[in-house]
Amino acid sequence: MTADKATVAFLGTGLMGAPMARNLLKAGHAVRAWNRTRAKADALAAEGAQVFAAAAEAAAGADVVITMVSDGPAVLDLLFAQGVAEAAPEGAVLCDMSSIKPKEAREIAERLSAAGRLALDAPVSGGTKGAEAGSLAIMAGGTQEAFDKAAPVLSAMGRPVKVGPSGAGQLAKLCNQAIVASTIGVVAEAMLLAREGGADPAAIRQALKGGFADGTILQQHGERMTTGDFAPGGPSKLQLKDIDNTLEEAAAHGLTLPMTLSMQERFGRFVRDLDGAEKDHSGLWLELLDQNGLEG
Amino acid sequence: MTADKATVAFLGTGLMGAPMARNLLKAGHAVRAWNRTRAKADALAAEGAQVFAAAAEAAAGADVVITMVSDGPAVLDLLFAQGVAEAAPEGAVLCDMSSIKPKEAREIAERLSAAGRLALDAPVSGGTKGAEAGSLAIMAGGTQEAFDKAAPVLSAMGRPVKVGPSGAGQLAKLCNQAIVASTIGVVAEAMLLAREGGADPAAIRQALKGGFADGTILQQHGERMTTGDFAPGGPSKLQLKDIDNTLEEAAAHGLTLPMTLSMQERFGRFVRDLDGAEKDHSGLWLELLDQNGLEG
Repeated sequence: MTADKATVAFLGTGLMGAPMARNLLKAGHAVRAWNRTRAKADALAAEGAQVFAAAAEAAAGADVVITMVSDGPAVLDLLFAQGVAEAAPEGAVLCDMSSIKPKEAREIAERLSAAGRLALDAPVSGGTKGAEAGSLAIMAGGTQEAFDKAAPVLSAMGRPVKVGPSGAGQLAKLCNQAIVASTIGVVAEAMLLAREGGADPAAIRQALKGGFADGTILQQHGERMTTGDFAPGGPSKLQLKDIDNTLEEAAAHGLTLPMTLSMQERFGRFVRDLDGAEKDHSGLWLELLDQNGLEG
Repeated sequence: MTADKATVAFLGTGLMGAPMARNLLKAGHAVRAWNRTRAKADALAAEGAQVFAAAAEAAAGADVVITMVSDGPAVLDLLFAQGVAEAAPEGAVLCDMSSIKPKEAREIAERLSAAGRLALDAPVSGGTKGAEAGSLAIMAGGTQEAFDKAAPVLSAMGRPVKVGPSGAGQLAKLCNQAIVASTIGVVAEAMLLAREGGADPAAIRQALKGGFADGTILQQHGERMTTGDFAPGGPSKLQLKDIDNTLEEAAAHGLTLPMTLSMQERFGRFVRDLDGAEKDHSGLWLELLDQNGLEG
């Protein structure tokens, strides 16, 4: 690994992973790709990636091994059952960019440390758009050594910030998701009050621009509430999973988070009773309408 | 009134009103100023304002009469008991930029319309900083005629957007305040989870910049929670008043707003039981700590 060109194993080249790997290639890094459904990794070969049939093969010789898969068990399986941790060189950084539980990230870090590998949990925010643009928010938890080694690679995909020790990256992601969930809830209340009070919700969003209440949720999710477009985006079943994980982590620290708790109940109702599982999380609007006996 | 230079009566030149009137003067409008405590209006004389002892005198000959006072009863008193509505020329726009209840704004508009005057409710967001910079968000409710007549004047103080008929400007302001209140609540939960989970809250705010969870509340109010600086800013007793008004307006439309309702209870507890009345609204953090048996 030179100062700025690394050999990177990229494990999990799905909706998010593929554009992220593509940005690594554009930045001049060598990419060794693997995906459970191999065809998705093969698509990257034309752009210069080397594709492997086994995850452990991809990890061999890598300076940084990135995992980008569905959940904690999938990361644990790759690293320890499929032999990725062992196959990676000693001193390599195993950087998990999936969204998993903080306690899983801490467990992974302990096991990797015992095996002489560096661990970094570095989940992202910004969606497929951010992945394509290379503008992801990257929330990193781990040692300074692991962060410093991975940062030049991460910078090709977005903006890495070290937020604390192992697990803190996943904790930051949960903070992000908890804020998003509750902000959707209150934007829905504002849009409903606007509509029923005889004002123009779109004009109100315009008027509030740049003020204390403004943000992406008001502008983008608020617009979805007005137009009734709930194609995901961020499906509500995943929003609910994030809320569950937030409250599990909070409970582990003895914390009560009343707003997040109430969003767990309401997203739960939306997902289970109101056919909301696959609808965008801005669809919580429909749950608020239902509470109020109103239609969309 | 020429296309862009108007005669403006400015009634209420306090903390917000004075810098707003100053921007009218800078833009070349003639300003006829009045304030209950006259000394505050006198301070504007050096900058070209004409100062009057009675509000009705200031209103005489004005194209646009702006009221910027504490609440609905104060506006009603000025317009109808102190004779401002009658003193203003027929066809003048009486533009109330105070934050009052939507139903008060609708009542004022009806009475002004009956008297042959135009009404606009146009409350603002952005605080004294926005007032000084001339960058206020101005949420306007009223007829198109009233808006079109007042807009060139309002533009000297900020960015006017027509959001609906009379009362809609005040409704938009309540939407703004409701979003702010609940966003403070959830940012507090995220900052608490970050702190107790061993991450660095300041680094998390940095990492979340530009993402879905980002906004002024996360950055500014979130920082106050970390540093413990609760000098207002926006005092919690006023935040509570806004929440009360939001729920009163919601009830008038038969609406249930669960998050705003829970913020009423919690800001109420903070103001009444936890010495929070004069503390900044970001001080809701202290209420969350108290719920969790924790210290600042």
